[in-house]
Amino acid sequence: MPMALVHRLSARAPDDVAPINAAIGSGDIDPNGIVAILGKTEGNGCVNDFTRAFAVRALGDAIATHVPKTRADRIALVMSGGTEGGLAPHWLVLERRDSERGPSPALAIGTAHTPSMPPEHLGRHPQAALVAEGVRAAMADAGLRDAADVHFVQVKCPLLTAERIAEAEAGGATTATRDTLKSMALSRGASALGVALALGEIAPNELNDAAIGKDFSLWSGRASTSAGVELTNHEIVVLGMSRGWSGRLAIDHAVMADGIDVDPVRSALGRLGVTAAGQLDPAARRRVVAVLAKAEAGSTGKLRGYRHTMLDDSDISATRHARAFVGGALAGLIGHAEIFVSGGAEHQGPDGGGPVAVIASREEFR
Amino acid sequence: MPMALVHRLSARAPDDVAPINAAIGSGDIDPNGIVAILGKTEGNGCVNDFTRAFAVRALGDAIATHVPKTRADRIALVMSGGTEGGLAPHWLVLERRDSERGPSPALAIGTAHTPSMPPEHLGRHPQAALVAEGVRAAMADAGLRDAADVHFVQVKCPLLTAERIAEAEAGGATTATRDTLKSMALSRGASALGVALALGEIAPNELNDAAIGKDFSLWSGRASTSAGVELTNHEIVVLGMSRGWSGRLAIDHAVMADGIDVDPVRSALGRLGVTAAGQLDPAARRRVVAVLAKAEAGSTGKLRGYRHTMLDDSDISATRHARAFVGGALAGLIGHAEIFVSGGAEHQGPDGGGPVAVIASREEFR
Amino acid sequence: MPMALVHRLSARAPDDVAPINAAIGSGDIDPNGIVAILGKTEGNGCVNDFTRAFAVRALGDAIATHVPKTRADRIALVMSGGTEGGLAPHWLVLERRDSERGPSPALAIGTAHTPSMPPEHLGRHPQAALVAEGVRAAMADAGLRDAADVHFVQVKCPLLTAERIAEAEAGGATTATRDTLKSMALSRGASALGVALALGEIAPNELNDAAIGKDFSLWSGRASTSAGVELTNHEIVVLGMSRGWSGRLAIDHAVMADGIDVDPVRSALGRLGVTAAGQLDPAARRRVVAVLAKAEAGSTGKLRGYRHTMLDDSDISATRHARAFVGGALAGLIGHAEIFVSGGAEHQGPDGGGPVAVIASREEFR
Amino acid sequence: MPMALVHRLSARAPDDVAPINAAIGSGDIDPNGIVAILGKTEGNGCVNDFTRAFAVRALGDAIATHVPKTRADRIALVMSGGTEGGLAPHWLVLERRDSERGPSPALAIGTAHTPSMPPEHLGRHPQAALVAEGVRAAMADAGLRDAADVHFVQVKCPLLTAERIAEAEAGGATTATRDTLKSMALSRGASALGVALALGEIAPNELNDAAIGKDFSLWSGRASTSAGVELTNHEIVVLGMSRGWSGRLAIDHAVMADGIDVDPVRSALGRLGVTAAGQLDPAARRRVVAVLAKAEAGSTGKLRGYRHTMLDDSDISATRHARAFVGGALAGLIGHAEIFVSGGAEHQGPDGGGPVAVIASREEFR
Repeated sequence: MPMALVHRLSARAPDDVAPINAAIGSGDIDPNGIVAILGKTEGNGCVNDFTRAFAVRALGDAIATHVPKTRADRIALVMSGGTEGGLAPHWLVLERRDSERGPSPALAIGTAHTPSMPPEHLGRHPQAALVAEGVRAAMADAGLRDAADVHFVQVKCPLLTAERIAEAEAGGATTATRDTLKSMALSRGASALGVALALGEIAPNELNDAAIGKDFSLWSGRASTSAGVELTNHEIVVLGMSRGWSGRLAIDHAVMADGIDVDPVRSALGRLGVTAAGQLDPAARRRVVAVLAKAEAGSTGKLRGYRHTMLDDSDISATRHARAFVGGALAGLIGHAEIFVSGGAEHQGPDGGGPVAVIASREEFR
Repeated sequence: MPMALVHRLSARAPDDVAPINAAIGSGDIDPNGIVAILGKTEGNGCVNDFTRAFAVRALGDAIATHVPKTRADRIALVMSGGTEGGLAPHWLVLERRDSERGPSPALAIGTAHTPSMPPEHLGRHPQAALVAEGVRAAMADAGLRDAADVHFVQVKCPLLTAERIAEAEAGGATTATRDTLKSMALSRGASALGVALALGEIAPNELNDAAIGKDFSLWSGRASTSAGVELTNHEIVVLGMSRGWSGRLAIDHAVMADGIDVDPVRSALGRLGVTAAGQLDPAARRRVVAVLAKAEAGSTGKLRGYRHTMLDDSDISATRHARAFVGGALAGLIGHAEIFVSGGAEHQGPDGGGPVAVIASREEFR
Repeated sequence: MPMALVHRLSARAPDDVAPINAAIGSGDIDPNGIVAILGKTEGNGCVNDFTRAFAVRALGDAIATHVPKTRADRIALVMSGGTEGGLAPHWLVLERRDSERGPSPALAIGTAHTPSMPPEHLGRHPQAALVAEGVRAAMADAGLRDAADVHFVQVKCPLLTAERIAEAEAGGATTATRDTLKSMALSRGASALGVALALGEIAPNELNDAAIGKDFSLWSGRASTSAGVELTNHEIVVLGMSRGWSGRLAIDHAVMADGIDVDPVRSALGRLGVTAAGQLDPAARRRVVAVLAKAEAGSTGKLRGYRHTMLDDSDISATRHARAFVGGALAGLIGHAEIFVSGGAEHQGPDGGGPVAVIASREEFR
Repeated sequence: MPMALVHRLSARAPDDVAPINAAIGSGDIDPNGIVAILGKTEGNGCVNDFTRAFAVRALGDAIATHVPKTRADRIALVMSGGTEGGLAPHWLVLERRDSERGPSPALAIGTAHTPSMPPEHLGRHPQAALVAEGVRAAMADAGLRDAADVHFVQVKCPLLTAERIAEAEAGGATTATRDTLKSMALSRGASALGVALALGEIAPNELNDAAIGKDFSLWSGRASTSAGVELTNHEIVVLGMSRGWSGRLAIDHAVMADGIDVDPVRSALGRLGVTAAGQLDPAARRRVVAVLAKAEAGSTGKLRGYRHTMLDDSDISATRHARAFVGGALAGLIGHAEIFVSGGAEHQGPDGGGPVAVIASREEFR
């Protein structure tokens, strides 16, 4: 019976893979079981954030010393830049292990890689359909049959470059945009809607090209998507609860309606058996293994009826404001700020809000 | 019997005094009773933040149309730049009115202006002593005899300029620093320790020049200080609870041990009769008139044992990170982000934390 | 015979109008002759730059003490935020005076205000046509008949706000964009193309809606446009050389092909009789009264074949990079950095370059 | 007879070592001759600039595939972050080759590594003395006997970390500062003064601990120093002109008195036989192989008598402003912006100015 483990390890720098190596050295992590590594790195999280690539390089080199290349190539490396406010840089190592022990249902992990996608599909209905298919494959990989058992879907999706646009145009096609930065948002958005399709959060007939990146009333409450230049397909990691898995870990999720809507997260903690009258006390805190959230500045320019200035600040990107602020709101509940808050939440939760996944242990974690 | 009123008004820009004029027009505010106006403006809150001066100019012009100059000159205008994250720009108009009605004890307001201070006293023991004397005068003005009844002391203090340093040196004196930016921190710190002296939070023999700006184990849990170039003395506003005042408003305070330590604020709300199992519900929220907090990045580089990166970020000032983050933590409790979070918390609360004052109404506010 | 004067005055802050008041007090400036004041203020030059509005307020108050309101209302106040690198904040006060003295031809100044423009015309052909008409009116005001005599046209143009978009839509019209920030670029671009039409730099049949904001092969080498929220019409200032004017000032212009193309400016200086083998020597420098330039990051991401990173920097706006850099290039020629470099050069000069106007005195200036 | 080569190669990202590998592959670079690689990377050049470490990692990996480790360890890798304005990210590969051909005197390269330095020496006289000794060793390595033949000295120096401060204190010593950021400036300053000592630019009796980091009237016109966490000794590269070397390359230097003082650089170009009436024309430009300059914001807050705002900008570090601005001034002369402008110029050139080295080819370079 498979068992999922999640290792949260503090990082002292974007290339600080020492804690991962140490955990492998001590036997806490079996490198052959690593399915994905999520990293929160301390760049600006925007276009010129090289901490993500630096981290990927360091992780790749470290993994290569432990596992054969064919296996290493299947590990999803998902870096999210930006540790604004008190957010702490850290790694989340997702591991799958065979086990006899432990209660069930438990946290289940499945992965899938979609085929390569032609550039002209990006940000359009075919991308959403492709991702939806990939999510179903990852669910099957995890043995998750019911969409209701899925609590978090991480998608790493491609973006457009000048070369890829030229390739499409050489073939007589046109891409959804010729703006490479905008292609990241479109790819994230279409991928999130693909998750929503797969999970039944939206109906197939609700989705069309015009809605992608525009109609933010369509969203997934469980998708977290990020675009990267290094791939032309999609890497998908699905986390859910399954009777086919055992172990001490469980997952649940919440949807924040806006950046300070922490009570749904408190409820999710309650469903996981972690109670919090106010902030989590130290014992409860140790049971919370990982918190993953998406943050964004609401496009209305208002939060609970009061004006926010994030979208008008030409000195600090709105995504940086949002991560710091939502990080504070969540840390005020969780009791620390080593939480995975990422930006760019197109079609991921409602406008100004976002999905949050919580992974908790049935016993104390640390 | 005097009555204190606090009007919280949203601002659409640093010079948007329209809501104040409207409240005067409708009779909600009696301009002759205005004691102080605190403003949260949307600049960077650092050296080149001109939104503060812009706001002061707009406020000054507006006040001049309503009250005679001698009275206008006595109104303390305290601007705090920086509405990072979801923080909402707003005004807090503090008014004193004669009244027969209302329960007691109630919110009391007192003010004092210290004499002008020679530049060489700045950041040293004599400044703290001068401020302590001023706090006592403001307490007397409010009829507050017991330091335990004081919950918030706002001090606007001077800073050093090249001219003032030269003036001191021409007289054979030396100033505590020749760095004008550093003089702001020293002035804030010495002023906060002056508050601590007046309120008995530290003993006179604990204070010496070497401790100011260095020994952050000395602090006030009720001081909020800000330095400005436009004065050479100190403007002091004391808020407390007094049996000599009546009205629907009450104040209490809390000390956050770090930037996410919201439970003491929750307790203060409870003492004010505003209960919050999770986030304040809309009815409770309407009873909270104002929240004033200080925020800073802890100097250890850690928050609850995890690394934060605020002090190492050369793109965004640590004070901006801290306001966004602490703003998120408090907004996650209060239920909105029109709260007065200011930076620069030297000797105001413990390292990385800060004082928070809450003013609540016995009935719903809005 | 009219005479044009240009007063360049250093500013110590965005609201530092003291030098203007002093020049009026000493008789150097006749306030009734002021036609326009251009200000370089020390904000970020982007959306949340309040130094411009702060300066306008201070200038307006100062002017009101010297001239009647009807006259004051006709003075164009054009603020450009952003003094990156070594650029020095300063005012340029443009004055028109009656005079018998002085050589001719000389610097001529003309102004015009267009009628108010319906929001749906912004960023489209009708705006360009309206501005072209206004430029012709300002030329007539200056007595400039030949477009070849025009060297600089400053246009202050409107932008779209949510209210104006709603107004257009209420009337059944659609605006060129619903993005208020983008409307600034479109308005600047259409206004610049209006200048190009009036000066014969482009032919009427070259211009259509689709080209505005897209086809940057169309541009004016003499336009400088900026958008502001405070007007719904256009304020136009034309500077040229006229036999109908006398005085010691002359103007010429150059077009930089990119941000470091200073030799055309050197040639313009030569045509004005100010020679520069290397950098201007102090005597030559004193003859240069004002330099006005537009700066932008080239959209190709390259400068002379080498990659620049301005467009990819999510920490600093490309406009701030460009002003600092072009400011350095021009200051390296001129010999100081109190020069008026502004950003946002859509259709103003070629992609990555921009127009530069130089006003020089026949004798030494300072 | 040795020959020095300098290869300037454009980089598409901080880890883009492809051009170096390509040059090795084509035989343009002999990897066994590489003495140093200087890299201009596109980070913020301040504390949290990880592009430098990312570049070092990529370079190290690349070198390891070409040369044995003992040789690779002797290659100095000096990264300078910050390509503000139009500055282009690039590598400068310094190579030493045996050769019979070419004219003489020619560019000579020498290197030296000092012994490890105890932390308590940092920023004090012993560090300067140690560096001076190292410079003499590097001169000897290059066969440069006369200090007048030295035109550029690059020093990579250590900084203090919490651990190193503790180590010093455990041994009963105190360090010059306990502020790790400040230690970088002190180390750069002491190292520059060490260069000045070795080159006879200051007399030994002029130097004492109190002057380091304070008395900026003491400076070297040929030093360029940068501090890094990865070493506890000093890596020194000396460039000069020697009759013992042959080749087509020559070097000269200039000292800019401030950020726009380009005429001394023009003179240096002239001495190298590259003439420039205005900006270098394309043929002259191809003969300029490399330009290395230091930039900083003058501490007086003025440039040529006009106020600059670099030191008061809390949104953009003064070092970033200075690089963009000085980059523009130099590019306006050189004709492109692939030039090596680095910040942090303590005791390197006069206050607000800095040394510039120019390496030119006797024939056209590209």
